[in-house]
Amino acid sequence: MLGIVLDRNLADKIELREVSIPSLMSNQVKVKIKAAALNHRDEWCRQGLYPNISDGVILGSDGAGIIEEVGSEVTSWKVGQEVIINPALHWGEDQKAQSNDFQILGMPEHGTLSEYVIVPADRLHLKPSHLNWEEAAALPLAGLTAFRALVYQGKVTSSDQVLITGFGGGVAQFAAQFSKALGAKVYVSSSQESKIQKAIEIGLDGGFNYRDDDWTKKALNETGGFDLIIDGASGDGLNDLIKVSRPGARIVIYGATQGNPGKLEARRIFWNQLKIMGSTMGSDNDFSEMLKLVEEKEIKPLVDQVFSFENAVAAFDRMRDGKQLGKIVLKP
Amino acid sequence: MLGIVLDRNLADKIELREVSIPSLMSNQVKVKIKAAALNHRDEWCRQGLYPNISDGVILGSDGAGIIEEVGSEVTSWKVGQEVIINPALHWGEDQKAQSNDFQILGMPEHGTLSEYVIVPADRLHLKPSHLNWEEAAALPLAGLTAFRALVYQGKVTSSDQVLITGFGGGVAQFAAQFSKALGAKVYVSSSQESKIQKAIEIGLDGGFNYRDDDWTKKALNETGGFDLIIDGASGDGLNDLIKVSRPGARIVIYGATQGNPGKLEARRIFWNQLKIMGSTMGSDNDFSEMLKLVEEKEIKPLVDQVFSFENAVAAFDRMRDGKQLGKIVLKP
Repeated sequence: MLGIVLDRNLADKIELREVSIPSLMSNQVKVKIKAAALNHRDEWCRQGLYPNISDGVILGSDGAGIIEEVGSEVTSWKVGQEVIINPALHWGEDQKAQSNDFQILGMPEHGTLSEYVIVPADRLHLKPSHLNWEEAAALPLAGLTAFRALVYQGKVTSSDQVLITGFGGGVAQFAAQFSKALGAKVYVSSSQESKIQKAIEIGLDGGFNYRDDDWTKKALNETGGFDLIIDGASGDGLNDLIKVSRPGARIVIYGATQGNPGKLEARRIFWNQLKIMGSTMGSDNDFSEMLKLVEEKEIKPLVDQVFSFENAVAAFDRMRDGKQLGKIVLKP
Repeated sequence: MLGIVLDRNLADKIELREVSIPSLMSNQVKVKIKAAALNHRDEWCRQGLYPNISDGVILGSDGAGIIEEVGSEVTSWKVGQEVIINPALHWGEDQKAQSNDFQILGMPEHGTLSEYVIVPADRLHLKPSHLNWEEAAALPLAGLTAFRALVYQGKVTSSDQVLITGFGGGVAQFAAQFSKALGAKVYVSSSQESKIQKAIEIGLDGGFNYRDDDWTKKALNETGGFDLIIDGASGDGLNDLIKVSRPGARIVIYGATQGNPGKLEARRIFWNQLKIMGSTMGSDNDFSEMLKLVEEKEIKPLVDQVFSFENAVAAFDRMRDGKQLGKIVLKP
C-alpha cells in the first residue's frame, strides 16, 4: 500500500512510498482511507521534535474511511461500514489521566496517511452522517483534545465567557465551535486579522490580536475578562492570560508551542483563585461524548485545504508555516 | 483599651499602647479577647510588605473571647457567650472568589491583638467546646485558608496521597490535620528535621527535607507520588512539586513566600493532566464547614508558644524567623 513515510535522510523528511501491509490480527480492522488530516504532531515528527520517533513509519493520526476487512474475533463491525478512527491508543481505565502505555496513532504505529490503516476494532466509530469524508477526517485528534480541555477539564457552562487562543489551529477551532454550541460567549485571539474576521463570520463573539501590545487592556474593556481560557501556546503569554482572567477563572493548557512560561505571577493566581489545568488528548469516554456533541449540534469542522497524498510536502509546509485556518486534509 | 499597634516610626514597628474604643454600631458585637494568634500577615505588616497598610491600626486577625456587649439590632448573640471570630470580612456571595470589598480583620480595621475587638455579629461563631482559649484563637485564619485549599479547591478524598509543604506554618499544620482526619495518607515537607519528626509523632505518614537535593527522588520512591499538594511557597520549588505529582494531580497554592515560580515545565503540566490552583482565605460557607469538621473530628490546633501582649515583639520575631511549629498565641 502507498503511505506517507517519515525518512529523515531525505531533504523533505517524508515520502509517499510503498509499504507492505501488516497482517490483520483477530481483534483488528482494516480501513480503506478516504481522507486523512494533519496535526502539529505530524509536522513535529518531520522536524524530529517529537520524542521516540523512528524512520519508516507512516505518519498521520486522523482518518476516516470504509471498512475493508475485519479480524476473526471482531463482531461489532462489518465490511463496508463508514467509520472514523479514535487515534488515542491504550488510554486505560482512568478518566483523570492516560496510562503509561498510552500512544497516538501514527508513531510508532503506522498511521492514517496511507491507503489502508489497521487498528483495533474498539478504535472505530460510525462516521457522523452530516459530515463528508474531508470533514470526518478533520475531527478526531483535535476534536478530542478540544473536548477534553473544554468540557472535562474546563467544565464549560453556558454562562461562561470563553477565550480560545491561537484561533486557526485545529484544537482552537473545535474548542471555539464546541463552546459556542454549548451556549458560552466565545472570543478568540490570533496574530492574524483575517483569522479574527473568520471567527466573527462563523458566529463567534469577537477576537483580539495578541501581537497588539494593548490586547489585554482591550479584552478587559470589551469583555470584563474571561471565565475559561483554552490555550495551546503556554510561554510568557500565560501571564497575559492570567491578566484577562476573571476571579475564579480556569485556564486550560493543552500545549506549549511558545515554550515554558517564565516568571508566573503567583500572587495573581492565588489571590484571584485561578486554576491552571493541563490537558492532553482524551479518554475513550471523552471521544464518545465529543462525537455525541458533534452529531447533536451538527457541528462541521473547518477544512482549510485538501491536498492529494502526492502533494504531502506542500501540506506539511503549510502546517509548519501556520498559514491554515482549520484542518489540512489529505486524500489518497 | 490596650492593643498592639503598628507604628513604623518605632524601631520594633509595633507597640502595646492605649487606643480609644470605637463606638458600637447596631449590627456589631464587642468581644473581650481571651487569646489571639499571629499570622504571617501580621509580621508582613510589621515589615511594610503588605499592601495598603497604615500606622495606628491594631494588628491581629485571629481571636477568641467572651461577648461583652451587643449592638441594638443584634438578636443572635448575648453577653457572656464564648466565641471565635471569622476574620474574613465582606467575602460576598460568590463561593468561587471574594468580592472587591474583601478585607481581612486586623488591617485596615482594628484587629484582635487587643483587649477588645468590635466586629459585625455575623463574624462570630460559638467556640468549639473541645478547645481551650489558646487553641480556639489559633484556628480561624489558618484553619479557613487550609480548609478552602484542601476541600473546596483541592477536593481531597480518603484515597488521596497528600503532600503538605512547609510543615510548621499555620496553614500547613491545619491542612495536614484536616486531610488526615478526612482519611487521606499525608506527608509533609520541611527544611527542619525536628518538624518532620513532629509530623510523624502526631500520626502523619512521613516527611521529606526539601533542602535535600534528592528529596523529589526519595519522595517518588517512598510514595509513588502525590495526588494533592498544598503549598504556600510557590517559587522555583513549584517545579519540584510538579515532579512529585501523580498524573491528574492537583497542586493548590495559597501563598508565595518563595516568590514567583521561574520557568514552569509546561509539557509536564499538560501531559500529566496536572492542575495548579490558587486559593486564598475562604468564604463564610468555607468557615462554617471548617468548624463543623474541627468539631466532628475534635481536631486540636498545635500551639507553638504563648506570649503575653507585653512580649509581642518576641512573638513577632519568632514568626519572622520561622522557628514556630504551630500557632504563636498572644494573651492580654
